[in-house]
Amino acid sequence: MDSWDERKRKFLERLKREIAEGIVDYDIIDILMTINSLEDYYTTSSCSGRIIVIETPEPGDKVGAVIHGKWHRRVTVDEVVEALSKSGNFDVWLVSQGPILHIVARDLDKAHTMLQLAVMAGFKHSGIISLKPSRVIVEVKGNERLDFLLKRRGKPLYRDDALPLLVDMANTILYLGKRKLFRFKELVMEFFEKTYTKV
Amino acid sequence: MDSWDERKRKFLERLKREIAEGIVDYDIIDILMTINSLEDYYTTSSCSGRIIVIETPEPGDKVGAVIHGKWHRRVTVDEVVEALSKSGNFDVWLVSQGPILHIVARDLDKAHTMLQLAVMAGFKHSGIISLKPSRVIVEVKGNERLDFLLKRRGKPLYRDDALPLLVDMANTILYLGKRKLFRFKELVMEFFEKTYTKV
Repeated sequence: MDSWDERKRKFLERLKREIAEGIVDYDIIDILMTINSLEDYYTTSSCSGRIIVIETPEPGDKVGAVIHGKWHRRVTVDEVVEALSKSGNFDVWLVSQGPILHIVARDLDKAHTMLQLAVMAGFKHSGIISLKPSRVIVEVKGNERLDFLLKRRGKPLYRDDALPLLVDMANTILYLGKRKLFRFKELVMEFFEKTYTKV
Repeated sequence: MDSWDERKRKFLERLKREIAEGIVDYDIIDILMTINSLEDYYTTSSCSGRIIVIETPEPGDKVGAVIHGKWHRRVTVDEVVEALSKSGNFDVWLVSQGPILHIVARDLDKAHTMLQLAVMAGFKHSGIISLKPSRVIVEVKGNERLDFLLKRRGKPLYRDDALPLLVDMANTILYLGKRKLFRFKELVMEFFEKTYTKV
């Protein structure tokens, strides 16, 4: 198995490649690079928060789910309407999810430090989700989330004029999550007294 | 500061008193007593999942929130209608939340074992949320959650005939969470080869 540093090198290479390709969600690059600039941490899968329009056969059935629209930024009502137009006869949801980061620490102590910073930043549902002698993983996660059921078995549930309000609410939740991400970066930089160097 | 065992004794006493008073949510008693019967664990605040009707001035504003109805079991449409009738001119939500358990372990190894059992039971957002030399806390949590915005600033958003569908969905999500709780108890019992003794 690869050493911790070898794994970090590979993940960081992948991240830099994906940033160059423009497929990394812009709002999260700063915090990811800040964390990866620290000797004892690297990041794996992470998301700055997103809004999705998803159709599922039944609640909890992820296998049969189809995503009709996905955005890592504010959406417009028109975009949601267009995504909705692709839906069929199942349940259609408008979901807004806050950020989620997976941070690998060199050891438990380092993981604990990062966990405390995440909680301080307002990511109250953060925790250590994996513990191996070779690496400890911290999941950074807040409480920002919305799940609006727009259609039940193809049938619209909301009044015609409600959609702008729902979209506005989804955007607000997304923004609240992103604000915490910014606060988290500030706290991490402050704590480690590091200056962020751009890649 | 109290010793680990002293704290366990106090929490268990409180739990037994609250069970006797009938204020502990019935669906969670089994798993709580199973975990507390194990030498190296005890539980603190926990919830088997709940459905609430809540009114908030703005999204994310917990301070100004008012709960108009709260149930740890399936609700009826009439119950939700009654709770709704108490609401004013703010945002009114129908929220269904899955179980959440806080389990204190004697040390990190024990916490890790419990975390793995929780993840096996389907509680994918579980993690170690606090690490002290004297105790390690595992948060057990799934992904089950629904947030229906029923009214925005006092104005109803759903179609008149949609409420029964929404209530049905809230009940389904509640049930999915409770099913995982049962599975978790089975896994814990199997792993520790313990027979559950009723208090």
